[in-house]
Amino acid sequence: MRDFSGDHSQLSLNTATVRKQGNLLDIIEACARHQIRAIAPWRDQVALVGLDAAVTAAKDAGLKLSGYCRGGMFPADGARRQEARDDNRRAVDEAKAFGAPCLVLVVGGLPQFSRAGSAVSKDLGAARAQVEDGIGELLDYARGVGMPLAIEPLHPIYAADRACVNTLAHALDICDRLDPDMTGALGVAADVYHVWWDPNLYRDIRRAGDKRLLAFHVCDWLVPTRDLLTDRGMMGDGVIDIPAIRRAVEAEGFSGFSEVEIFSELDWWQRPMDEVLETCIARHKTAV
Amino acid sequence: MRDFSGDHSQLSLNTATVRKQGNLLDIIEACARHQIRAIAPWRDQVALVGLDAAVTAAKDAGLKLSGYCRGGMFPADGARRQEARDDNRRAVDEAKAFGAPCLVLVVGGLPQFSRAGSAVSKDLGAARAQVEDGIGELLDYARGVGMPLAIEPLHPIYAADRACVNTLAHALDICDRLDPDMTGALGVAADVYHVWWDPNLYRDIRRAGDKRLLAFHVCDWLVPTRDLLTDRGMMGDGVIDIPAIRRAVEAEGFSGFSEVEIFSELDWWQRPMDEVLETCIARHKTAV
Repeated sequence: MRDFSGDHSQLSLNTATVRKQGNLLDIIEACARHQIRAIAPWRDQVALVGLDAAVTAAKDAGLKLSGYCRGGMFPADGARRQEARDDNRRAVDEAKAFGAPCLVLVVGGLPQFSRAGSAVSKDLGAARAQVEDGIGELLDYARGVGMPLAIEPLHPIYAADRACVNTLAHALDICDRLDPDMTGALGVAADVYHVWWDPNLYRDIRRAGDKRLLAFHVCDWLVPTRDLLTDRGMMGDGVIDIPAIRRAVEAEGFSGFSEVEIFSELDWWQRPMDEVLETCIARHKTAV
Repeated sequence: MRDFSGDHSQLSLNTATVRKQGNLLDIIEACARHQIRAIAPWRDQVALVGLDAAVTAAKDAGLKLSGYCRGGMFPADGARRQEARDDNRRAVDEAKAFGAPCLVLVVGGLPQFSRAGSAVSKDLGAARAQVEDGIGELLDYARGVGMPLAIEPLHPIYAADRACVNTLAHALDICDRLDPDMTGALGVAADVYHVWWDPNLYRDIRRAGDKRLLAFHVCDWLVPTRDLLTDRGMMGDGVIDIPAIRRAVEAEGFSGFSEVEIFSELDWWQRPMDEVLETCIARHKTAV
């Protein structure tokens, strides 16, 4: 396992971690100030400052990307499927403009939550089939552009409204069906927050291997968790054995960034940007 | 699938559903008033009125049990393991006094949450090993008493603090190792709230079969869910396709009660007991 204790050269900042403290250009400036070498920007943050300005600022600051957030939200009514298709292709193009190593896919849950206005459904199996069809279709486009897609299985807590792919095993099953030759065009994003509880975690990290492990995200699971979406913890403040998971991922050959992604309405989003980044850097050295 | 639309003869009330509205004797009276034929009492509610009084009241009211809540919380420091052992044996004895068909096991998470005062650990694998050892030991005792044990896999949201067995597959693996002959002494409690998201749900219900399916619990998953523990929904108010799951369970031969278990600080615990029971009965007919 790589030694992170001496510097933070392998840290990437998912820009949602400080989304309340400034716009993307502010965040890029702060990364430069703290010698952070990589980011993973969100599309809404990019849109706010404009794609060209964001790409230029990231390049000028010498920032690499660990991924681009995000495509997905595939389940939709027939009427909204073209919207989903177009939206996802734009996400691929934006990722390409940044030179991202992958576009992260949060695949969506039931159609009424995935694409607002879609008819109410309780058919999770149908949503999962739509997800796989949607990824398959987007994959054709993304291959053409040369942008790998990383399916991010989300914690089962989000099965209804954000992602109905909830285990690495399920994500890898989809990868194997759509990209049986393991071309590098399709893989997974492993976020410790989403996968730490899985009894098959280590088996499935081995199954993924270097060919499918496109991204590695860190934060922590707090007990108690006070909000289902926005009470994620700083690494070291929760119950996840993050180094054990990183060790397993790196044992497969993963050598990418360790991407810090913390949604924290009650705590970290309330603190100054510099304090948050300093803490991320410190914890990257001691708790990742 | 059994037709529930005409009456509520197959409804059992988990007494936590109205725990804020009265004590166990009040609840038993209310069940009699509403022609509810079965309950699943919680140990703390029993302790409050006394075991003998509770057993007598249930028998006088002609109530059967669908299960007894609950044993478990196995992970513990060495110093607290005897406490866990004794506590669980008492739970078996109490279940026997009621003539319950099974003791439901909520197995516990990391030791510091499972048995307060235990040293802090992030080793979920070790907790899972302790769970399996604990169940194995309790099973010897429970066999002697003639009390089946039902492992209840909890939603992964509770992996840290309440139960580190989070899928039917994991629970069934434990059953197969500890009771390979499928004697009826060990099985699972399938609660739709905990298992609905699982991509392997229907496969694992088939795997469980009638021999392992000892209990079936219903409520609903709300979107949004405002609290991790106490914001469960009334059947029909959420996103779970409950009839589809009941159909699968009954296809295996399950013919037990459909047990309503709703923890709802923000809604149902605030309403009069009779209103809650009337609603449970109505939804049992239309949404289960």
